[in-house]
Amino acid sequence: MDAMDDLNTTAEKIKTMEIRGAGRIAVAASAALRDYAMTLKSLPMSEFNVKLEEAAKILVDTRPTAVSLPNAVALTKRHSATNVYDAIDEIKANAEKFITNAEQALGKMGKIGAERIHDGDVIMTHCNSHAALSIIKTAFDQGKDISVIATESRPRRQGFITIRELNDYGIPTTLIVDSAVRLTMKEVDLVVVGADSISINGALINKIGTSQLAMAAQEARRNLIVAAETYKFSPRTLLGEMVEIEDRSSDEVIDAEILKELPNVKVRNPAFDVTPAEYIDLIITEVGAFPPAMAFTILRDYLGLDIEV
Amino acid sequence: MDAMDDLNTTAEKIKTMEIRGAGRIAVAASAALRDYAMTLKSLPMSEFNVKLEEAAKILVDTRPTAVSLPNAVALTKRHSATNVYDAIDEIKANAEKFITNAEQALGKMGKIGAERIHDGDVIMTHCNSHAALSIIKTAFDQGKDISVIATESRPRRQGFITIRELNDYGIPTTLIVDSAVRLTMKEVDLVVVGADSISINGALINKIGTSQLAMAAQEARRNLIVAAETYKFSPRTLLGEMVEIEDRSSDEVIDAEILKELPNVKVRNPAFDVTPAEYIDLIITEVGAFPPAMAFTILRDYLGLDIEV
Amino acid sequence: MDAMDDLNTTAEKIKTMEIRGAGRIAVAASAALRDYAMTLKSLPMSEFNVKLEEAAKILVDTRPTAVSLPNAVALTKRHSATNVYDAIDEIKANAEKFITNAEQALGKMGKIGAERIHDGDVIMTHCNSHAALSIIKTAFDQGKDISVIATESRPRRQGFITIRELNDYGIPTTLIVDSAVRLTMKEVDLVVVGADSISINGALINKIGTSQLAMAAQEARRNLIVAAETYKFSPRTLLGEMVEIEDRSSDEVIDAEILKELPNVKVRNPAFDVTPAEYIDLIITEVGAFPPAMAFTILRDYLGLDIEV
Amino acid sequence: MDAMDDLNTTAEKIKTMEIRGAGRIAVAASAALRDYAMTLKSLPMSEFNVKLEEAAKILVDTRPTAVSLPNAVALTKRHSATNVYDAIDEIKANAEKFITNAEQALGKMGKIGAERIHDGDVIMTHCNSHAALSIIKTAFDQGKDISVIATESRPRRQGFITIRELNDYGIPTTLIVDSAVRLTMKEVDLVVVGADSISINGALINKIGTSQLAMAAQEARRNLIVAAETYKFSPRTLLGEMVEIEDRSSDEVIDAEILKELPNVKVRNPAFDVTPAEYIDLIITEVGAFPPAMAFTILRDYLGLDIEV
Amino acid sequence: MDAMDDLNTTAEKIKTMEIRGAGRIAVAASAALRDYAMTLKSLPMSEFNVKLEEAAKILVDTRPTAVSLPNAVALTKRHSATNVYDAIDEIKANAEKFITNAEQALGKMGKIGAERIHDGDVIMTHCNSHAALSIIKTAFDQGKDISVIATESRPRRQGFITIRELNDYGIPTTLIVDSAVRLTMKEVDLVVVGADSISINGALINKIGTSQLAMAAQEARRNLIVAAETYKFSPRTLLGEMVEIEDRSSDEVIDAEILKELPNVKVRNPAFDVTPAEYIDLIITEVGAFPPAMAFTILRDYLGLDIEV
Amino acid sequence: MDAMDDLNTTAEKIKTMEIRGAGRIAVAASAALRDYAMTLKSLPMSEFNVKLEEAAKILVDTRPTAVSLPNAVALTKRHSATNVYDAIDEIKANAEKFITNAEQALGKMGKIGAERIHDGDVIMTHCNSHAALSIIKTAFDQGKDISVIATESRPRRQGFITIRELNDYGIPTTLIVDSAVRLTMKEVDLVVVGADSISINGALINKIGTSQLAMAAQEARRNLIVAAETYKFSPRTLLGEMVEIEDRSSDEVIDAEILKELPNVKVRNPAFDVTPAEYIDLIITEVGAFPPAMAFTILRDYLGLDIEV
Repeated sequence: MDAMDDLNTTAEKIKTMEIRGAGRIAVAASAALRDYAMTLKSLPMSEFNVKLEEAAKILVDTRPTAVSLPNAVALTKRHSATNVYDAIDEIKANAEKFITNAEQALGKMGKIGAERIHDGDVIMTHCNSHAALSIIKTAFDQGKDISVIATESRPRRQGFITIRELNDYGIPTTLIVDSAVRLTMKEVDLVVVGADSISINGALINKIGTSQLAMAAQEARRNLIVAAETYKFSPRTLLGEMVEIEDRSSDEVIDAEILKELPNVKVRNPAFDVTPAEYIDLIITEVGAFPPAMAFTILRDYLGLDIEV
Repeated sequence: MDAMDDLNTTAEKIKTMEIRGAGRIAVAASAALRDYAMTLKSLPMSEFNVKLEEAAKILVDTRPTAVSLPNAVALTKRHSATNVYDAIDEIKANAEKFITNAEQALGKMGKIGAERIHDGDVIMTHCNSHAALSIIKTAFDQGKDISVIATESRPRRQGFITIRELNDYGIPTTLIVDSAVRLTMKEVDLVVVGADSISINGALINKIGTSQLAMAAQEARRNLIVAAETYKFSPRTLLGEMVEIEDRSSDEVIDAEILKELPNVKVRNPAFDVTPAEYIDLIITEVGAFPPAMAFTILRDYLGLDIEV
Repeated sequence: MDAMDDLNTTAEKIKTMEIRGAGRIAVAASAALRDYAMTLKSLPMSEFNVKLEEAAKILVDTRPTAVSLPNAVALTKRHSATNVYDAIDEIKANAEKFITNAEQALGKMGKIGAERIHDGDVIMTHCNSHAALSIIKTAFDQGKDISVIATESRPRRQGFITIRELNDYGIPTTLIVDSAVRLTMKEVDLVVVGADSISINGALINKIGTSQLAMAAQEARRNLIVAAETYKFSPRTLLGEMVEIEDRSSDEVIDAEILKELPNVKVRNPAFDVTPAEYIDLIITEVGAFPPAMAFTILRDYLGLDIEV
Repeated sequence: MDAMDDLNTTAEKIKTMEIRGAGRIAVAASAALRDYAMTLKSLPMSEFNVKLEEAAKILVDTRPTAVSLPNAVALTKRHSATNVYDAIDEIKANAEKFITNAEQALGKMGKIGAERIHDGDVIMTHCNSHAALSIIKTAFDQGKDISVIATESRPRRQGFITIRELNDYGIPTTLIVDSAVRLTMKEVDLVVVGADSISINGALINKIGTSQLAMAAQEARRNLIVAAETYKFSPRTLLGEMVEIEDRSSDEVIDAEILKELPNVKVRNPAFDVTPAEYIDLIITEVGAFPPAMAFTILRDYLGLDIEV
Repeated sequence: MDAMDDLNTTAEKIKTMEIRGAGRIAVAASAALRDYAMTLKSLPMSEFNVKLEEAAKILVDTRPTAVSLPNAVALTKRHSATNVYDAIDEIKANAEKFITNAEQALGKMGKIGAERIHDGDVIMTHCNSHAALSIIKTAFDQGKDISVIATESRPRRQGFITIRELNDYGIPTTLIVDSAVRLTMKEVDLVVVGADSISINGALINKIGTSQLAMAAQEARRNLIVAAETYKFSPRTLLGEMVEIEDRSSDEVIDAEILKELPNVKVRNPAFDVTPAEYIDLIITEVGAFPPAMAFTILRDYLGLDIEV
Repeated sequence: MDAMDDLNTTAEKIKTMEIRGAGRIAVAASAALRDYAMTLKSLPMSEFNVKLEEAAKILVDTRPTAVSLPNAVALTKRHSATNVYDAIDEIKANAEKFITNAEQALGKMGKIGAERIHDGDVIMTHCNSHAALSIIKTAFDQGKDISVIATESRPRRQGFITIRELNDYGIPTTLIVDSAVRLTMKEVDLVVVGADSISINGALINKIGTSQLAMAAQEARRNLIVAAETYKFSPRTLLGEMVEIEDRSSDEVIDAEILKELPNVKVRNPAFDVTPAEYIDLIITEVGAFPPAMAFTILRDYLGLDIEV
């Protein structure tokens, strides 16, 4: 069946990271599931639901540790219909709402977060987060005289992308190595970072090193704000799950040839770390600015997911 | 006069960093001053003292922000003699004592510090410190089953020297990027670092990033010990001076060609940072293990420097 | 139209501070809007809504940084009616509910907050807050043997009003200068203060000096409770806005004549400061005692305001 | 005997606060004791010592809670002579050394402390301390572009003296009420205060409110330095004594007439408070900059007092 | 009437602690109230409600400081019926729901909490909590290689029951005295405790000593999770009430005969202590894992209790 | 030789704990060494020194982890004599000084420490420390109206000895279990404990549970003072050694018969724990009150021990 082929193609692209980035993955999965559902018009209701669940599982299994993906799928597939036509209508509406919301989120977060930035502020950011940069650029667009301190973000040096992006936008930017975060913190007014996901207890999972910015900001009494779309909040953490930290290849850190010469040496290369809620001032979402303790409210009232214990 | 030539040669080598490392600089300066003084036998006393001070100044001025260098010179040149022969004898004795002490310091610090390491310990270290590694190796030599987590230490990646040194010594070692310090800290039992200098209030000036290890260790209630020869303690901080932090070339951080394309971007590349005394458990010197508040006692009673207010 | 005249009169009284105090302002604005709406019976629906919004804006614009005022107006004006008669009925009901609630709030906060006060307690308070004093007096009325430490509350010395009020109520009271807060804190059992407004992250904006009581209470592990009517919670902070701190005249601090003689001296006289949520144990509202992280729930579920992102 | 009359006159002036300020009291007492001793030439040794102790007691008893006074007397009176002439010679030398040192202390502290101030710094100070102002003025004299935030320092408003003094020196100054310390702290680079006395555990006893500046500085990770002559260190705290906090008249806080109308109200007006050592970065003395833990070393090695347990 | 006799019998058993344990009490009270209500079929509605309230009061008054008991009664008795038959139906449904939920809670909490436990973890627990042990046993059943450190839990030594229970389950366990909690904490990965009740501000009331585990865990940056059924959350704390701490007999601490010999000695034997919310990572309930700030949401949305201010 | 017999008898009594308590052990060892030395009059100098060292070693080896014992032996045996008669004279003088000092220490510490106790104070103490009780009793003898909270001090319940001792002295005392320390801390004004030994970094090694009192005192901002004779300071910690924590028999915690039934259960029964210096306000010695950072000064200047690195 070529409807399933299309869905498999999307799944494959997510798996191979041809489609990447939490937002893009979520949008692609929502659309793929909607398109697939629309081809099942002629099935009896019970079979429709089975097929829908199968398709959902295929999509979710492509990136088992992602958060935006299962959220997108769950929000798209749910329906209360008793016939297939109505079910498809609900699913189409779900997908449209999810995709529109995802597309507008960056702008809304930019607007809300920019309120926190004042004329003259020095902002520190880490890695390369669209959401964090949306806030910074919005503040700059409002005519605020700001500058940015960007970390290199070893091992993959996403800081180099960030400084280029800020340079091209005309925002004065200073590049530092990750080790210089604490020394430089005393010149900083506000730290702004993105999110890989948010846990039920308000903890932030984000690029390795984020929690060091947060710790240094806390020590120096600077505020840290996190920009996170609602679909970054992890419903399964309500069930006790902890977010897994992926360990990446040693090649990102040291040349494989050199490492081979050193039998007693290994590399640990965690992709993310966990920033506790007490180091976070506010989480900026597309539906408002919330303290981290409100994660459950986002999950239930904005994401609207039913979670079966 | 070729005696002065020799001294100038040493001074030049220190300036051009042909002679580098706090210990080697200190020993070379002490020896150079001694050798020069020995050539001044035939001078009248007053002229001897003038020449001695001039030579001392030449040496000290080669690296104005160093601490071991003026300490070495001050400890070598002082004498209470009223004739040149006695003065030279005192200076020779001073130099011998200083040089012997400097040469034995590594071994003594290794022995004292190794007492703090227990079987099974995981030790985190930063950059490439002979003194810190002396402690780790001594513990390993004592048959303790230990392992090391070494940071990359951007921008100059001295961590690569450290892992090679530990590899060759047979000590199991894990390399991490500087951003992974906080995440990894929960597996660490003890942090051991070296020192560039120690301030009167017990603050440690050391390789950029040291204070982040210290902050993360403090947060996780792990102890940090510092290995520092007594000549690393800064007498001028008693007079209120703060240790200056050198800013190094942007080339160490980002390719100059790339930077040229980015007119709104600059690089800040501080060589050191400052770790406050409350983040330090003990400072291991060659004369014993002291809490940081004892810096004054080291300066006065062990270094024996007279400081004129 | 004299209906508009009445509304303008109220607006003027709010502007000139003839009507002052967050509660009184809120009640007056709600009543004025209701009365005005009742005069618009004969208008077509669309025109009615336009007029209503105009009137609302006039009221809100009188004190742009207040919080109770826009809350009162928003809660009064909202209706879901499709004809003017129903709309007026809804608005009348809104106003009655708001005004009744505002009038009963003091008593309810007093009753809830007094539960936190025990026989023998020494309570510190700052400035002159009706809500905080309602709690203290209710505890005293319950026969609890309590005493109060009241700060002078420079520059306007509202503490002098507080001590007179407590004196007349028969409650033993000690007056201290604002500088003596930390020294005196060790004799205190509980700190009780009022609120100018509450931010989405649970931060308290209140009379300058409040955050010093809070910091000293935190340091000494004493609890601080805040008495705040629900209409003190700021909905716009959900949209990222930070509450502005008004800077008042230097005359309150130093005689203008003296200041004139001192060309190098200026005065900074902020009216409020911000107490972070982590320094607050509970916020006592008329609908219950909540931890500060619940600000969003108060805003949405008790205040019932819809906020468009 | 009119020698005793002179001493009594000085004692009286200290008692009535005609001679006031820790430094002036100390110098006057040292000189008075010296002058008195010089009149006792003709006495036998044992009687000389008795008279000396009596005179010392008269001076010390004038201000039983002062610290500089008994230190001045103890340092002046001590001698190891076996005949009166030698004793007088020692006492004269003691007095000269003490007085010279006291007179030069301000300049030396200014020089040492100014090293801690950088171009562009905003310095907060409290009350009116000669020593703290000496540091600030020295930094200004060195051409550093600095400004000061001065607290009002209720109840006696010594801040008004400070702002006038700074104004006349040409230093840009901002006056704030004591309640605004925490809000303003984020604009501050360094806090500089004087000392009434220093305890063996490094705690600072100083004008009421000092510990609130210190607490706010600590919270915001700003450094606080204390300017204190060595004779401000309290030897009796080594014997367990705690420094007593004087309670001053209510008239300084509120008009007596008003207070009379308020039978349930009393005033607590403590003159000093205690800042714990962990809130202090450095104590600047005339013999160097020390961390607070070094108080014992100052007492023993610089003050040279023998304390009998 | 023997229906009332049955209810009185249950009430008596709760009072005499023949029925004990928060869960068993709650279930028994719910069933007793249901059974009693079913005997009132023939009464007129108004009389039915009066009798129902009387019966509810009898049950609640048996243990005035308990939390599960009034929650069980309130959740069982509520109905919106206008005739007795419907009311009884609602009450039967309420009781069934409450009892089923209570019976399944242990298993659900075990499953959710066990997600937080990893292979190799050392878990510290206090006293003897069914809910905490359910989490530990579930993790063990999942094949995780874990061990437990159990405190003695003086004075009643419930730790001895815990070690027997863990021993019989095959889980390696170490017994320590309560004084050894801090020393042992550095070997612990996670602390798991039960709850007597939870306050609106997220504070935990539990067996005396719990707050010391929590404080030591916080100091060493170990997480503490609390296992608490939703009926342990205290609605009355929303009204300002603080949970009372029962003081138990001195006989539990010291032999009465010995105490009689010591007229100047008394015993204080508090049964519970209060752990502040900031020392708690997550509260595991049967409906999910929540941060402590969510107590209000549990009370309102899961417990569904209406609380009249 | 029966001189050696006597020394061996003393050594045996120390080993078998017939002589116990840090003070009594130290005095007995000093006396035994002195008595033994006095029997060696007729030996040649070199042999004398050999015998003296042998005897010293026998004494020190009886309790390898004690601190007072090697201090007593080191302070007694040292001499600078070149003939045996002079050596014996020095040793006799050493012993007399050490023993006298040890005997007077309790009284001196009582006097110094009592200065820290004020009328109305509630003092918490742990275990049964002569030195701590000397301070409390001295304050009581001075007529201060004080009371004590004493912990049970499981496992050996030395608290029962303490309450009997305080009862007989007439001091009102409250007994609590060790788990109630944190709950009770808010009623405490000062914590006073003894010391097993003090480390170079000011850390206190004392009865298990001491660090929990210290942590709870710190959390509640209560001061903790430690009473420790100078011979309790550990010179070998200057060389990096950490004080070993003895693990005692499980019989003290649980009946051996019960434990036998529980194959999966073991007991950990550490005798001491370590309190970090930052939790200690002052250490009261017989030579004065010092902050913990002064441990090195006590070791060097009061104990006068030469330590070879």
